[in-house]
Parts: sequence; structure tokens; C-alpha cells
Amino acid sequence: MEATYDGGVVRAGRAGREQFYDARGYGRPVDGDVHLAPVEAAHLLFRGDLDAVVDDGGNRLEFRGFLASAAVSEVAFFVYKDLRDRGFYLSPTRDSGEGDAAVDFAVYPRGKGPWDDEVAYRVRAVDERADVPAATLSGLAGGAEGTGVLAVVDEESELTYFAVEAPTLTGSSYDDVPGVTGELVADRVLVWEPPETLHGRAFYGQRLADDGAVQLSLVEAASLAGRGRLELAGRTDAERTLVDRGREVEGERFDRRLRVYDALRTAGIVPKTGYKFGADFRTYAHVDSVSDLGHSERLVRVLPADHTFAPRDLALDVRLAHGVRKEMTVALVDGGVEWLSVTRLTP
Amino acid sequence: MEATYDGGVVRAGRAGREQFYDARGYGRPVDGDVHLAPVEAAHLLFRGDLDAVVDDGGNRLEFRGFLASAAVSEVAFFVYKDLRDRGFYLSPTRDSGEGDAAVDFAVYPRGKGPWDDEVAYRVRAVDERADVPAATLSGLAGGAEGTGVLAVVDEESELTYFAVEAPTLTGSSYDDVPGVTGELVADRVLVWEPPETLHGRAFYGQRLADDGAVQLSLVEAASLAGRGRLELAGRTDAERTLVDRGREVEGERFDRRLRVYDALRTAGIVPKTGYKFGADFRTYAHVDSVSDLGHSERLVRVLPADHTFAPRDLALDVRLAHGVRKEMTVALVDGGVEWLSVTRLTP
Repeated sequence: MEATYDGGVVRAGRAGREQFYDARGYGRPVDGDVHLAPVEAAHLLFRGDLDAVVDDGGNRLEFRGFLASAAVSEVAFFVYKDLRDRGFYLSPTRDSGEGDAAVDFAVYPRGKGPWDDEVAYRVRAVDERADVPAATLSGLAGGAEGTGVLAVVDEESELTYFAVEAPTLTGSSYDDVPGVTGELVADRVLVWEPPETLHGRAFYGQRLADDGAVQLSLVEAASLAGRGRLELAGRTDAERTLVDRGREVEGERFDRRLRVYDALRTAGIVPKTGYKFGADFRTYAHVDSVSDLGHSERLVRVLPADHTFAPRDLALDVRLAHGVRKEMTVALVDGGVEWLSVTRLTP
Repeated sequence: MEATYDGGVVRAGRAGREQFYDARGYGRPVDGDVHLAPVEAAHLLFRGDLDAVVDDGGNRLEFRGFLASAAVSEVAFFVYKDLRDRGFYLSPTRDSGEGDAAVDFAVYPRGKGPWDDEVAYRVRAVDERADVPAATLSGLAGGAEGTGVLAVVDEESELTYFAVEAPTLTGSSYDDVPGVTGELVADRVLVWEPPETLHGRAFYGQRLADDGAVQLSLVEAASLAGRGRLELAGRTDAERTLVDRGREVEGERFDRRLRVYDALRTAGIVPKTGYKFGADFRTYAHVDSVSDLGHSERLVRVLPADHTFAPRDLALDVRLAHGVRKEMTVALVDGGVEWLSVTRLTP
């Protein structure tokens, strides 16, 4: 069978409608005809279900020629093919002019199709070299029906899928610590005579020795000072002093991290440094005693809201988090904090 | 016991020499006296073995005051203390004016000390917020005796140790492929009628379908073209065309990656994309058939020779590599390629 291509859609006629749409969910039925997006036609050519596409100039394009033409994005083709190989029916949403511009494909639940009005995944397809603005991830997380998915085609044309969601962060960790006085020493605050609850229950800082002073990181100290629970010996404005020191050593990143630290503590969650995992924080939702500490649930990467992701960096973060049984969480900081969880998905 | 501090070294006298140097490897013996570096004195103060240090002005500093003074680097103190806690004797090399300026401590094998003339580790201590030039890592890898180690103190004063070494990269992978012709389609080269060895033995590219065309990445294609084994249909200069396309999509990074790709192939090693691990390449040293592919041994990150590392990024790479049982390898590209392996160390 051959189909016609007018530079926009590929038309396969009544026989095409029956064979492609009715039987296997390709294209959209239009007045007894079927309109195929170029990527769908490319897949039918690849499978040998279509022999060729004939354009307005009478040129007859087989798979190789059609894929190499400007009509088909290779990245979209690889994603389309992979999802078909996995047993899904899916519809291009952008080429057909429908739906959220940030999404390339609506993928139906296995066994369902475009006639069922149910969407499992909303998929955005990108090349591993593409810039992915944070707003794209927010859009995927915030969409209506179906899980938002970023599909990345790597340089060897292999696929990785990331589910992007908006998690609710809430915990029950103890945070009722009394006011303390500390001493700022370079990039740390030493509390020489800490109450037991400061570290032992609320998990602020680390002990210098087993039963001695507690050292607070700058962000822990600035957060405590901002909530009126820490004073610095010999300084009148602890919070200002600590924020200034933080900015000296980390720049604006310190302000973002402090914002996120505060938001997590307010949500009943304990943030501790994520350095060993290359992240800003690891978090514990339910700490009542450090001697009975559970597994930390999340790795948090703090970024400005206008950050642009490289897919390779996302792959690194998500892979690492998965390997240590934590959920990769992005905190986008602007006026407030927007949370996004990014996890590996095998559709 | 008290010691005197002249702004350079701390002197603890004959009794100090016996108690600190002879018995436990602190300081350097000088004419019946012992000269302690400030970080050593701080540790003795911390342990209560010294009561105070008295400076030239007659000020008596106990542990808190001495640690907070400019005499002692907190980062050095935390590293010194941690290594002592782990049962090592060690000597500051910088404060005493001896040794490689890039190294802070010479750490002796357990059970040995400064009198034994044997070094287990040469340790550079840095804060997690420090910039670490590639040259620092090269210096650690290239030193004479003992393993070069980067010790990173995180914001909560916890320690991570990375061993930095210069690995020998060599393999036995098959690479005897005949010349082929391909078609450049966007960022890939499609070889429509590939010889079996291209993918099946030499592991170039991926198959588009199980027995069909082979798609090559740009870097694979450029490397093959550079070695006269790939021509592009309809183009006269395949190598130039591919390098130009690579630079369009990756900038100078493409040249560096191609240099490293070529070096690995020359060494008998197969590089494949490391995208899923957030790296440039994963490598296979012994491929004779793709159907009998072993585990890839290394993750390679390609960087310019003047790159400055953030310890947090190193932590991320090393942690991930460890989790997938591969060795994190840095390829520094300048005129040639310098290889560094970075692995987590528990001293």
C-alpha cells in the first residue's frame, strides 16, 4: 500500500483507516480517510505495512528516504518505535496540533487505544544533547491525565524514560529544640554545651566527639538562627552573620539551600547534607531519635527555577538515587519552592 | 602539660618529645625538643594530652581557643582527627615545609610511624566547597610513594576519601572491520547493509532492527572515517563532515570525546555511550562478540586538562560508578590524554 503526503499529514484512505487505525491505533480517522502523522507513517514504512509515501511532487519515498527527509524527526521516530515495541498504542500530540505543546505523544494503557479516551503517559521526547528547561519538567509533572514522562534518546539511539511528578513532602520529625548559643569557627558553628535534644532527637549537626560539642553546618545554623533558636557568642545578629558567611562561601546557592532547608524542616522533614551522593540534601521524614535513625528517603537537588537541565545530568542523579534506594527530588527555588520527583520508568 | 607556640611551631620540650613523638608519632624531634605542627597540637589539646598552648604574648589557649584561632585549619583538623581515629600515625607535610606542596599529610601504614620511612597515603585535605584543579589530581596520581588521596570534609564535617591513581588502559577487543558506506541522517549515521563484524564483533553502533541496518553515533562514525573505514554516501570528505556535525551539536566537547574514543580503540578497548550513567563512555576491554558481551569495566568522563573539579561532582561520579561495579575514570584531554582513576577509599 502507498499513501500520500502533502507536507503536513499522510493520508492512507479507507483501506488504511481499517488496517492502521481501526486495527492498530495509527493515525486519526477523518471522513472515512485516515490521517497519519509523519512519525506514524515512518513506523508503518519501517514495518513494511506501507510500501511508500508519495509527496505532492510525485516523489516516491520508502522508509530510508522518508526517515532521512525533514518530515520525520529521528528522535520522535526512535521513541515512537520503542513504545510500539513495548506494546503500546500512542498518538503524536504535537504534529496533530492537539494537546499540550510540551508533550509529543499521548500513550494509552496497554490494550487500549486512541478510541478509549484514557492516557497512561504524556511523553516528551528529547535528544540527550537537548537543553531541558525546568519549566518543561514542571509541565510534565503538572499535567492532567497520565504520568508525565521525559523520554531521552541517547547518542546510540537507546531510550531512557523518566517519570516526572509533583510529590507531597511531609514528615513527622521532632523539631522542638530549646535556644542555644554557639561559636562561629570558619564555616561551622560549634555548640560547646548542647542540650541532648539538639542532635540526639532533632538531628541538628554532628557530635565532635561521642558526648561533646555539636558542630552545625552553616545552613543548619542559619535556619536555627532565623527561627530564634540560635545565638552566636559575641555577635548581635546571628542570622545575618550566618547568612553573610554562607553567601561568602557558596554565593546565591546558599540562599536557595537555606530556603529549601527551612521548607523541609517546616514540613517535618530533617535535611542532612547530601554530599556523599553528590546532592544538596538527603532527607529523613520520621526522625524521633538519632540512635534509631531510619533510611533517608530522598536526595534533594536545589536549583534556581530557571535552571536548564542537561539530560545526562538528570540520568546521573536518577541512576544514583535509584542505586541507593532514594527518590531523586528537585527543589526549584523562585519565590517559593516547587518540588519535582524524577524516577526511572520502564513503560 | 603546656606547650609554647611562636606563631610557627608548637614546642613541647623533652617530656613532650618522649610522650608525643617517641610514644605516638606526633611532631618532629629537634635537638631533644619536639616541634609540633599546629594541627598536631590541636589534636593533643582535643585529647587532653596537652592542657594549653601559650603564645609569645603569654596568652594561654585551650582547645576551643586554639581551634578557633587562625593557627589551625578546621579542615586539616578534621582530617587529622579522623585518620588518628582510624589508627594511623601521620605527619603534616606542608606546615613542616617538607614534601610535595600539593599534599597535606603523609600517612604511615598502620602500626608504623614517622621513624619508619614508609608512606601508605599522601593526603590532600579540602573542603567540599573548594575548587580542585585537575592538576591537583594529577599530582596525587603521579607521586612517588604511597597512594595519592583526596580527603574531602563535607559541610557537616564528615570525611570522604578518594584514591587517585594513574591506570594503565589496555584491552584485547576485536577491531578489524572492513570499510563501509553509511548515510548521515541528522545526528546519526545509518549503515544500511553492514557487514556482520561491524556490530556483531567490533561492537560499533546499534542495530535498528534485529538483523537490519546499523546506526552509528557521530563519534563512532567520525572515528571510523578518520581511520579510513567509513565513507558517507554523496559526500567527499566523510571525516570532515562528521567532525563538523559533531561540533555543531556538542561544540569542543566533541573533539575531546573523539580524541578519547580513538585512544580507547587504539588500546583495544570498546567505548560505548555512558549516557545512562551520566558519563561520556562506558568501556569494554575484551569484546570478541556482542552476543557474548561481558560487564563494562569503566565509566569515563572526558574533560579538558584545565578543568576544575567540584568535590561534590566527584562524589557523585565515584559513588555511581561504585554502585554499578565500574571504575570511575577521568580522561583529561590536552595535547594527549591523561587517565586518572578515582575510587572511594576507606583508609
